[in-house]
Amino acid sequence: MVIVMGPEATQDDVESIVAIVRAGGVEAFVSRGVERTIVGLVGDVTQLDQANLRGHAGVREVVRVSTPYKLVSRENHPERSTVHVGGVPIGPGTITLVAGPCAVETPQQTLDAALMAKAAGATLLRGGAFKPRTSPYAFQGLGEAGLRILADVRAETGLPVVTEVVDARDVDLVASYADMLQVGTRNAQNFALLQAVGAAGRPVMLKRGMNATIEEWLMAAEYIAQRGNLDIVLCERGIRTFETATRNTLDVSAVPVAQRLSHLPVIVDPSHSGGHRDLVLPLTRAAIGVGADGVIIDVHPHPEQALCDGPQALVQDDLPALAAVMRDFPPLLGRTAAEAAVPA
Amino acid sequence: MVIVMGPEATQDDVESIVAIVRAGGVEAFVSRGVERTIVGLVGDVTQLDQANLRGHAGVREVVRVSTPYKLVSRENHPERSTVHVGGVPIGPGTITLVAGPCAVETPQQTLDAALMAKAAGATLLRGGAFKPRTSPYAFQGLGEAGLRILADVRAETGLPVVTEVVDARDVDLVASYADMLQVGTRNAQNFALLQAVGAAGRPVMLKRGMNATIEEWLMAAEYIAQRGNLDIVLCERGIRTFETATRNTLDVSAVPVAQRLSHLPVIVDPSHSGGHRDLVLPLTRAAIGVGADGVIIDVHPHPEQALCDGPQALVQDDLPALAAVMRDFPPLLGRTAAEAAVPA
Amino acid sequence: MVIVMGPEATQDDVESIVAIVRAGGVEAFVSRGVERTIVGLVGDVTQLDQANLRGHAGVREVVRVSTPYKLVSRENHPERSTVHVGGVPIGPGTITLVAGPCAVETPQQTLDAALMAKAAGATLLRGGAFKPRTSPYAFQGLGEAGLRILADVRAETGLPVVTEVVDARDVDLVASYADMLQVGTRNAQNFALLQAVGAAGRPVMLKRGMNATIEEWLMAAEYIAQRGNLDIVLCERGIRTFETATRNTLDVSAVPVAQRLSHLPVIVDPSHSGGHRDLVLPLTRAAIGVGADGVIIDVHPHPEQALCDGPQALVQDDLPALAAVMRDFPPLLGRTAAEAAVPA
Amino acid sequence: MVIVMGPEATQDDVESIVAIVRAGGVEAFVSRGVERTIVGLVGDVTQLDQANLRGHAGVREVVRVSTPYKLVSRENHPERSTVHVGGVPIGPGTITLVAGPCAVETPQQTLDAALMAKAAGATLLRGGAFKPRTSPYAFQGLGEAGLRILADVRAETGLPVVTEVVDARDVDLVASYADMLQVGTRNAQNFALLQAVGAAGRPVMLKRGMNATIEEWLMAAEYIAQRGNLDIVLCERGIRTFETATRNTLDVSAVPVAQRLSHLPVIVDPSHSGGHRDLVLPLTRAAIGVGADGVIIDVHPHPEQALCDGPQALVQDDLPALAAVMRDFPPLLGRTAAEAAVPA
Repeated sequence: MVIVMGPEATQDDVESIVAIVRAGGVEAFVSRGVERTIVGLVGDVTQLDQANLRGHAGVREVVRVSTPYKLVSRENHPERSTVHVGGVPIGPGTITLVAGPCAVETPQQTLDAALMAKAAGATLLRGGAFKPRTSPYAFQGLGEAGLRILADVRAETGLPVVTEVVDARDVDLVASYADMLQVGTRNAQNFALLQAVGAAGRPVMLKRGMNATIEEWLMAAEYIAQRGNLDIVLCERGIRTFETATRNTLDVSAVPVAQRLSHLPVIVDPSHSGGHRDLVLPLTRAAIGVGADGVIIDVHPHPEQALCDGPQALVQDDLPALAAVMRDFPPLLGRTAAEAAVPA
Repeated sequence: MVIVMGPEATQDDVESIVAIVRAGGVEAFVSRGVERTIVGLVGDVTQLDQANLRGHAGVREVVRVSTPYKLVSRENHPERSTVHVGGVPIGPGTITLVAGPCAVETPQQTLDAALMAKAAGATLLRGGAFKPRTSPYAFQGLGEAGLRILADVRAETGLPVVTEVVDARDVDLVASYADMLQVGTRNAQNFALLQAVGAAGRPVMLKRGMNATIEEWLMAAEYIAQRGNLDIVLCERGIRTFETATRNTLDVSAVPVAQRLSHLPVIVDPSHSGGHRDLVLPLTRAAIGVGADGVIIDVHPHPEQALCDGPQALVQDDLPALAAVMRDFPPLLGRTAAEAAVPA
Repeated sequence: MVIVMGPEATQDDVESIVAIVRAGGVEAFVSRGVERTIVGLVGDVTQLDQANLRGHAGVREVVRVSTPYKLVSRENHPERSTVHVGGVPIGPGTITLVAGPCAVETPQQTLDAALMAKAAGATLLRGGAFKPRTSPYAFQGLGEAGLRILADVRAETGLPVVTEVVDARDVDLVASYADMLQVGTRNAQNFALLQAVGAAGRPVMLKRGMNATIEEWLMAAEYIAQRGNLDIVLCERGIRTFETATRNTLDVSAVPVAQRLSHLPVIVDPSHSGGHRDLVLPLTRAAIGVGADGVIIDVHPHPEQALCDGPQALVQDDLPALAAVMRDFPPLLGRTAAEAAVPA
Repeated sequence: MVIVMGPEATQDDVESIVAIVRAGGVEAFVSRGVERTIVGLVGDVTQLDQANLRGHAGVREVVRVSTPYKLVSRENHPERSTVHVGGVPIGPGTITLVAGPCAVETPQQTLDAALMAKAAGATLLRGGAFKPRTSPYAFQGLGEAGLRILADVRAETGLPVVTEVVDARDVDLVASYADMLQVGTRNAQNFALLQAVGAAGRPVMLKRGMNATIEEWLMAAEYIAQRGNLDIVLCERGIRTFETATRNTLDVSAVPVAQRLSHLPVIVDPSHSGGHRDLVLPLTRAAIGVGADGVIIDVHPHPEQALCDGPQALVQDDLPALAAVMRDFPPLLGRTAAEAAVPA
């Protein structure tokens, strides 16, 4: 941390800052100039409240120069991690395809979508039983009935299940059915939920908040990790910008940046970011090209009847092209498509 | 709602759309041109899933032309509402000052801050016992002990209490102490929490999500209203933009826009949006000038020791200027400063 | 400037940085820790290319801690400046109303608008003869014929003229008619134009780029100042954000922030930021409340026939309310409404 | 175009709108409901001023449903175009690599960079002689001396030259040396410059404004096209968002969206968007994966001495990996790497 003080800072102001810093067990080095005095802090500054230092007389700026997250940081864990979900790896050596319907609607629809996903090369099944919707008048998901459908489809297809939880009170219930818990973009700073999934004993897929900086995203992961769970997969799903031609703006650069800052795997959701079926394959190729460890994609047997996000779901006719991407691109990145633990 | 179809749309495509719409009990008027065919929908389109119509053959665009919220809309409730909190009005005839510490730290600090607030003209006390913090290593609030302090300070000062709840599981607990429940910016789309506060029987202050459009903010309010609670006060607290000179960008225009679209009162938080003590008074004057029904402001007896957001808290020396604003500006807007129900 | 080096930085890397810095005439203070080494720079760092220091081995971050602009900075010029336009002051003691039509269309329309402006308290006339339009198919302004109309209306009303220039080749022409040159938001980083208006011998109104940070805005002003012209008025006119309910998001906080960083006057354009007539008066009150040194407002005798931005122009019926704001609000801020040099 | 009128619209208001529309030669179809009346417009609405219709009594919203650009639109030109620069194609069948130094500094540095570019597979040389810089104190380019260096290096390497022009007054000069004129992000709405390059008889590379919507970008291209020049290549180079971990946010989705809306080729600049050397190769793979028609990349023999944007330039050691991408990825997209017209 670096504290910058202005020309109006007195000798007393500087000494007062140094005293506070040293009381916190941190070394302070003072560089005094005419226009600015710079106090360099060396040591563990986690306990120094950055904001308060800003409030002291003479202080112009407080610049943090180390990462505020520890457990998910790559600094202390240089090797990139692999997370296993029902035996399926997500990590640096593979490209994992997670696919399925946006929302679980009926047993048949879910099974059909799962078979579509599998045919395209998916080794994990996505599907929502609890849907966070902007409008209270929109379909909110089947709840536990949806979880039971997912479990049945897993039994039939062998695909482990990734599903969202939106309420800390439901975490145990969802964890009893799911192989991986998903935290959605709207809950990316729902800290009660993050702590609850951290304690649930299941791998977690953490979507980036649509307005979260990469640092805030990693801080959200740190909330989960603090509860003893490091089986976290980060998922870039588009951020909110001024551009309205797409649902959100897929921030592909966030993938290599997050991989440099954190040891956690990073995947991409090309369906929710683009919001249009026609964009899913191009964005999937972009995601793999930029170095993502996997993608999560909506498929639906009859998207024109879908209760949620139909326009972005891939249909039967799109699957051969998706399968070709999953076959042809990973080798160029020195990876293989992730396989099921025990092929079903 | 208007459905725009491209030149590739066949007669069958158009008829298919019209059939779907009419099946939903809505009238459809077709205007066919060379480049575009426009299908105008007249009636209650709430049940027509906008997204799915987008997926049909020939459809280029689906444009919603009525508001997706009903209970909080001003269309069906032209008169602007007043919400009463412990007898204190927030509404079109008054300017209400809510003030207090960002976080409850000790009984003495809370009492001192409350007395500062009162001296400046505040008739409601703010103070957080549950703090949503970006970092898991930051102070997270005193919890129930903090609520008890707030209740004690209310007893001593007569100021009704506004305090945040961050977890649906805590709503009953917080409601048992608070006069008004606050939902913060990070929980603006935590729908489980919105529904829980909607059922809690207390007025709610709903902060705008820092990435929420005004429409999404009103949809969040609709979640609360749907549970039978229309005592909702909207609070603009700054949105996230590219500008980093301020903590967030206070969107003052959102105040008159939200007041035109909704009958709910709208207040402004100049402390959290600007993030700097020096900006609080200018932004307070801007808020009142633009037509806000009140402001909510951080004050702290010793901000350099504050456990949360010290740099933005007003101090003792700032109070006369704040009191002057509360005295001089409301009359220019044809309002009065809101008074306590029973002066303490 | 502070250079942060990572744990991988060798002793040689650090010494190499120090050597480069000292070669640039700047002192370097090294604080070495386990995780980070911090090199604090003290002196005039203008000539050190920040970007290149970033490229050196071992460097993690380069943090600038002093302002990159000099001439417009308040650091070297603590007193806020007043700019005079045809004798009318824009500065800290006054609130100046600039008003007129968005575009000059006809002599009669321009005169009518000028008389409306004057009736509302305006002491400067705005009006565009060269209009930068997003679409090449939209009205682009009357050019020199429009400038002649403005000069005629000035002669008749006594109001000095503020008008936009969009092409460096037109600066002399426009300067021969105008009392103040305006640089619009789309040209906020058109450096050739900035340099040309800097050399033209007229006061300049510099609108903030709709995507410019406050620092970039001040750097644009520095381009003008470098050519010897410090008669610059900054104009906040809304920035581009995700919110689409308003044309742009008026960043009122930018006014006090820019006034703290720069000695230049800062005014606000409530017409172009909001984009709706109904927002102009609320945003005008917000602008004055936040401390702006003036406002610039579109008025039009017949906005339904306007060739540009009709929906945001105030009409005759709005003028009494605007005049009341100009009469009642300045005294609360310790200011007076700016008067004409020689009342006409 | 669709005009939406509210419940307050009288029969007269509706008829008045219809009369205006028909006077403009456009058909109007009225669908009247209880809450809304919808007027669908069919025909060429280019001449109807959208903004003014918004100002009429009873009008709530005016929704444009056709594209406002004509010449660059794909509607009237379904086949995607190929632009040739000195014989090198940029278009749907190829992937073109444009590479070179950000700024021309010396003959040797430019030649070295050009040879690096060529070794990596580049068939066009980039290099700036006129540099738009945020700070007036930064290196602004060598001007005509730089253009002469570029011409010399072209003679030596056979690589046609792409170079930026920042001032309409310099267009003829730059066109006399360059094979392709580049318009940079800061000039994306400098309409005088766009018109000048449109008339210069050279292909143009038009960078997207960092705050431009895709529609505004295409409107800027329309300004060029209107002057008779359709040899335009669009270049996505990152947009400004709240994320500060990268210089800008590369909007890869904009590539397929722009290609669907316009027949013009679209390339990507991974150097300026990411701003870090480490991001260039991942973003290049993402760009090719998403369907870009080429990439433009900074290379520099000694980036630690570069006068502009050194940290993002690829160095000698990066070239084999870049060459491998140019060799391996195009075939997966059904393309070939673009070759020189006459191999040098």
